[in-house]
Amino acid sequence: MKVLQNDLFLRTLKNEKTERTPIWVMRQAGRYLPQYRAVREKADFITMCKTPELAAEVTIQPVDLIGVDVAIIFSDILVIPEAMGLEFLMNEGTGPVFPNPIRTASDINRIHEFDPTDRLKYVLDAVSLTVKELDGRVPLIGFSGAPWTLLTYMVEGKGSKNFSRIKEFVYRERKTAHKILEMLTNVIISYLKAKVAAGADVVQVFDTWGSILSPTQFEEFSKPYIKRIVDELKSVAPVIVFAKGVNYNFSKLAELGANAYSFDWTVDLAAVKREIGDKAVVQGNLDPTILYASHDDIRSEAAALLGSLDNGNGHIFNLGHGILPDVKPENLKALVDYIKVDSHKFHK
Amino acid sequence: MKVLQNDLFLRTLKNEKTERTPIWVMRQAGRYLPQYRAVREKADFITMCKTPELAAEVTIQPVDLIGVDVAIIFSDILVIPEAMGLEFLMNEGTGPVFPNPIRTASDINRIHEFDPTDRLKYVLDAVSLTVKELDGRVPLIGFSGAPWTLLTYMVEGKGSKNFSRIKEFVYRERKTAHKILEMLTNVIISYLKAKVAAGADVVQVFDTWGSILSPTQFEEFSKPYIKRIVDELKSVAPVIVFAKGVNYNFSKLAELGANAYSFDWTVDLAAVKREIGDKAVVQGNLDPTILYASHDDIRSEAAALLGSLDNGNGHIFNLGHGILPDVKPENLKALVDYIKVDSHKFHK
Repeated sequence: MKVLQNDLFLRTLKNEKTERTPIWVMRQAGRYLPQYRAVREKADFITMCKTPELAAEVTIQPVDLIGVDVAIIFSDILVIPEAMGLEFLMNEGTGPVFPNPIRTASDINRIHEFDPTDRLKYVLDAVSLTVKELDGRVPLIGFSGAPWTLLTYMVEGKGSKNFSRIKEFVYRERKTAHKILEMLTNVIISYLKAKVAAGADVVQVFDTWGSILSPTQFEEFSKPYIKRIVDELKSVAPVIVFAKGVNYNFSKLAELGANAYSFDWTVDLAAVKREIGDKAVVQGNLDPTILYASHDDIRSEAAALLGSLDNGNGHIFNLGHGILPDVKPENLKALVDYIKVDSHKFHK
Repeated sequence: MKVLQNDLFLRTLKNEKTERTPIWVMRQAGRYLPQYRAVREKADFITMCKTPELAAEVTIQPVDLIGVDVAIIFSDILVIPEAMGLEFLMNEGTGPVFPNPIRTASDINRIHEFDPTDRLKYVLDAVSLTVKELDGRVPLIGFSGAPWTLLTYMVEGKGSKNFSRIKEFVYRERKTAHKILEMLTNVIISYLKAKVAAGADVVQVFDTWGSILSPTQFEEFSKPYIKRIVDELKSVAPVIVFAKGVNYNFSKLAELGANAYSFDWTVDLAAVKREIGDKAVVQGNLDPTILYASHDDIRSEAAALLGSLDNGNGHIFNLGHGILPDVKPENLKALVDYIKVDSHKFHK
């Protein structure tokens, strides 16, 4: 049983009263760090994902260099579709691509469920190695894309502006879409459970493309599948859900039963926290571009966010989206230091 | 004084009780129509904007071919930055580009306010010609980008994923940003007033990139400028505001005092209508990709939207975003016919 030196993040997730606000940022193991870029020069992105030593190294960098309160395993949400049999390329410049995307009902025959301890052993090894190297300094988050978000990538094949292919697919091949969402849900559950077994303390589910769905579409194509993941995972680890842009009804979102919900910066976090109440913790949501500003401006924007909440308890500080690659590391450090030193003032 | 044969749209904007719901769709004068593509083959996009006969022709096409209840003048929101002195190119494939964007405080010297009856006479001529050719069949909407959205394009220079340049600009050059927003507000007011003088019955302000702002940023960089436009225009014509993605507080949005607000498909329109109450009319918000579905599915999704509202009055039917270029015109026609024939059932 591992003993954590810093368990603030876990206590906050249990909605306990705490001495200050914990902080981490999405993409904290990323290109904004020169030490990350140094590793990246030796290996391409996919090799980094598939080499436990490299994944562990960059996962721990922001703990050492920035002082965040939790690590998140370096990986990619698209390892799942690849493990299901969909060929995956990471093109420099254009981003991830599935050269043969899912487009017709019969394409379901090209994908299959799988055993994560076999096909995604490299991620689990990276988790175990990271836990060992962290040596109890901070907890570790394991993550997955949500079924809807993964299906969107599998059908679009690459980045999209209109998301017309996935929408066309779910209207024309509704039954197949649900079958694939079911398969994805099954593999995500076993994948996240395996991550917890390998040592992850918490899991986060990213539904990035929840943002392209209308409220009724979200209820049909995304929410029931996330709910099943939360139901299955909650007994083994706390679950955070980030349904980006799903901002229409926070009480309804909270029906998912997760321990925490993460929000982008277009949301009034104080209003959401009031609406969700004690049912869950909120995570977020500083505009990531605020990290371009001066240290004084960064501190005052962070203070404004903390001050907007009635109470600092029940809040995990984060950005509303991944840190941008051209942000100066010292600007993130200024934010993290501010939260660590001053957020106690907002706790009652 | 022009007499309209179909003034349903205008009566709805006055929040009058009406016999059925009016309908139009964003980008209705667009690439999904073969008749539009035929004009587009003869002239590039900018030439179409600048040739009143061509602009009038494509503006009227959806009235003739689809039967929408209102026309919207064919033009582009980027005519304003161009008229202010910023060179503008429409690249095939990559979209609009400002090769020399605004990046530093001194770049403000490269732009200037202008007289729309001079620099944008071609738009006003297109409006007058369209009004003449419509001959009172339906009203005409004139439009503009909101100051924030135009500033975003002027600083980014082209499409963006992170909008890091505009955000960096407003944090580093906050005063200059406000000065340019002020200039834009001035020219937008005189431009929209000139459009009304030329015969437009209604104006719509598009704040497409309101979606990238946090609530406090929207209050600082966008809302006060839109408010001034609404205040100045409201005495001459009804005003519709489409602040895309600004979904955090609808009562606060309604403080703008516009006659109507348009919403994208991620919003629960019924909830918004309840929240805004009698203060304004709502416009929207069917997911544009529903037009890929069968006619039966299109009708049932439209019925679901109409049925979700307590009352069909006070609602202008529209998509939540522009119609996609690969939608079949007969699918839009099926939607428009359904609204014209069946929406009376939802009016009390």
